[in-house]
Amino acid sequence: MSAPYRIYLDEDQIPKKWYNVRADMSEQHDPCLNPATGQPVTLEDLKHVFCDELARQELDATTRYIDIPEPVREFYKMFRPAPMTRAYNLEKALGTPAKIYYKFEGNNTSGSHKLNSAAAQVYYAKEQGLTSLTTETGAGQWGTALSMASAFFGVDLTVYMVRASAEQKPYRRSVIETFGADIIPSPSNTTDVGRAILKEHPHTGGSLGCAISEAVEKAVKTPNCRYVLGSVLNQVLLHQSIIGLESKAALDSIDEYPDIIIGCAGGGSNLGGLISSYMQDTLKGTSDTRFIAVEPASCPSLTRGRYAYDFCDTGKITPLARMYTLGSQFMPSADHAGGLRYHGMSPILSKLYHDGYMEAVAVPQTKVFEAAVMFAKHETILPAPESAHAIRTAIDEALACKKTGEEKTILFGLSGTGYFDMQAYSSYLAGSMADYVPSNQELDLGFSHLPNVG
Amino acid sequence: MSAPYRIYLDEDQIPKKWYNVRADMSEQHDPCLNPATGQPVTLEDLKHVFCDELARQELDATTRYIDIPEPVREFYKMFRPAPMTRAYNLEKALGTPAKIYYKFEGNNTSGSHKLNSAAAQVYYAKEQGLTSLTTETGAGQWGTALSMASAFFGVDLTVYMVRASAEQKPYRRSVIETFGADIIPSPSNTTDVGRAILKEHPHTGGSLGCAISEAVEKAVKTPNCRYVLGSVLNQVLLHQSIIGLESKAALDSIDEYPDIIIGCAGGGSNLGGLISSYMQDTLKGTSDTRFIAVEPASCPSLTRGRYAYDFCDTGKITPLARMYTLGSQFMPSADHAGGLRYHGMSPILSKLYHDGYMEAVAVPQTKVFEAAVMFAKHETILPAPESAHAIRTAIDEALACKKTGEEKTILFGLSGTGYFDMQAYSSYLAGSMADYVPSNQELDLGFSHLPNVG
Repeated sequence: MSAPYRIYLDEDQIPKKWYNVRADMSEQHDPCLNPATGQPVTLEDLKHVFCDELARQELDATTRYIDIPEPVREFYKMFRPAPMTRAYNLEKALGTPAKIYYKFEGNNTSGSHKLNSAAAQVYYAKEQGLTSLTTETGAGQWGTALSMASAFFGVDLTVYMVRASAEQKPYRRSVIETFGADIIPSPSNTTDVGRAILKEHPHTGGSLGCAISEAVEKAVKTPNCRYVLGSVLNQVLLHQSIIGLESKAALDSIDEYPDIIIGCAGGGSNLGGLISSYMQDTLKGTSDTRFIAVEPASCPSLTRGRYAYDFCDTGKITPLARMYTLGSQFMPSADHAGGLRYHGMSPILSKLYHDGYMEAVAVPQTKVFEAAVMFAKHETILPAPESAHAIRTAIDEALACKKTGEEKTILFGLSGTGYFDMQAYSSYLAGSMADYVPSNQELDLGFSHLPNVG
Repeated sequence: MSAPYRIYLDEDQIPKKWYNVRADMSEQHDPCLNPATGQPVTLEDLKHVFCDELARQELDATTRYIDIPEPVREFYKMFRPAPMTRAYNLEKALGTPAKIYYKFEGNNTSGSHKLNSAAAQVYYAKEQGLTSLTTETGAGQWGTALSMASAFFGVDLTVYMVRASAEQKPYRRSVIETFGADIIPSPSNTTDVGRAILKEHPHTGGSLGCAISEAVEKAVKTPNCRYVLGSVLNQVLLHQSIIGLESKAALDSIDEYPDIIIGCAGGGSNLGGLISSYMQDTLKGTSDTRFIAVEPASCPSLTRGRYAYDFCDTGKITPLARMYTLGSQFMPSADHAGGLRYHGMSPILSKLYHDGYMEAVAVPQTKVFEAAVMFAKHETILPAPESAHAIRTAIDEALACKKTGEEKTILFGLSGTGYFDMQAYSSYLAGSMADYVPSNQELDLGFSHLPNVG
């Protein structure tokens, strides 16, 4: 085997600029709306919630490349460049003629790609002189990433952690606390929206949408504080473009170009980042790579959702975004891929999907874990349940190549590791894991709460 | 900063041979003895327990370099070369003129360096046509590493896991099971020695020494099966020499040579591997690098143990090794660095220490966790409690440089990550972690059980 297993770019090949895919989109997604006025959100609206530079980035549809601040690049050097790996052993086990590559973003303590945006967001907050931040976390990767960046740059952090997650994953909570952040299980009594939800549902395990509501409320009511979010937003996709930029640099170095790019999709941060540079080629018309978003069958926002204006949170205090959504009141089942249990999808990715640039598939979790265990045994990395969605589809595409004899080049995003998800693996191994697919009636109930806008 | 944060060697720089430090030692450690005969163990003796090639390696004191089999090198490529990192941010936080480097072995699913030897041991077993292996695990890194290698090469594995660990770390157990190994909490009813221990101590949480006894007994009584061990042995230090070989190649590439090399020491696998190439220079008389073994104050085999013949296990069925030991019946307190709770120390390292080539310090665990949290906040990696012993001493040496103004170059081994040790971190953060130092009376009790040999 002459081609290497793993390609590590040199440190000076860490990108110096993020790529803003919006600059190459011929049509933009519809603007987010201020729910109070029904008008497009303004920079001033956003500055109440996000720090100034991030608010600017959120609305920037024209600047193609944005400088990565030097302190953020220095931070990146502690865990980047991330490796591009050829899955030789998985290929061999599958007996496929396809070449399978994966970009591995789990080689840092947050266990995922989330640290890419966390570093940027905390840095900008620090630069603006803010003293504290709030956020929410579900599965915990984002909370961990943000606690790491906050500890490093010296900003206080409060994390609203979905109550069910906080209880199921006490060790994930300990990691976040080790980095010095405060954790509040959500819904909580620390916010109006939390108190209202608790009054109606005293025993609820919470949801990501609800934790977002609380974190936003806390941020706007605390002096010198802002809210930060780890997915869905345009700014997050911008920061995560580093995954795609590095991926393209690595594969270019061995003259490879993917025929298929596959990523798991919850809010879209990992997928949006992974595809960025290649989507640029597609938007320019110089490539016909297939992009596949993989979502859980239990929370199928792209494959079964509606393309409509909706709130980003359960408490209905965020702007309205036009996106694929199951409705902000949709409560997904207790699927183990906590990071994919979100009712909506990044407006940028929603638009690309709506315009036919991207495909989507929904997969049941037992098939996902089957792929995860196979991958672990042959490639020695224990994947996060979220990332294993991409593995499932990569395996399926590779097996399709086996049938047709096509030597396609497949790239998938291995966005993180599963060290804090062993309860899920145990459940799978014990044969007690169930697959849940929402009925059309359940989806209709979710859609019935969509706001009457746009 | 012109020098890089991290140095990744190229894949073709993965060493092609392991280095056998014994070939450069002017005096060898005393031979291990067969307890039944009192005579030095023979190759034939060892072949009952270990597979043939490993038995040969165990006794080989003359071959300086031993080829790494190609399939083992191919396996290594999935997680090696491991990065050499400059701790710029820790240096800055300490305000030290010292340069601090660390060799990070935690970037694989086993969470530690243990995979280096696991791959080799399973490969040789497979080559010999063995169908199953047994081993023990305490903290769980070795068990995980071995389950990964066994899954990959297709050999059945039974892991005797210290009962207290199996109960405290159900998720570590799940990882091992995910890779397809069987786990038996030790002591168990599956062996004579286990039944005997249970009869005397029905409620014991077990110990590493006891789990070793069970795994050895099981191996010798099972057809086509052998026992494998992750530390202490000469063969293990041989395989782990890859850490030192890569470290030297990386630091040579930027013209650095460590003044001080620091590693945590339980059975000696990580430390012995880390220092290998540099110890070669010292043994040749061309270098005066200081080598520091760091052990927990609760289990101080080098700093307070005796250099004597002793059993390697609690059940007294293994050969007798001359080593620094607290006595095979010594029961260390419930220190959180499970990987360092072993009564003895590698005979090679014991000999080097005895002959003055190495220093040793013992550190209390609250100071270890203080260092771990500081390291995590500044370097973004959550260290294993074991590895944090080395961090503690690296920080102490760097602070000594701050006082004297010396720009020393410090290298320490970051042997693993702490994702499965959050209970320990929580205990430290809550202020409920205790430091335990055995009294002289306790040590004397341990020494009273030393066999009357040699």
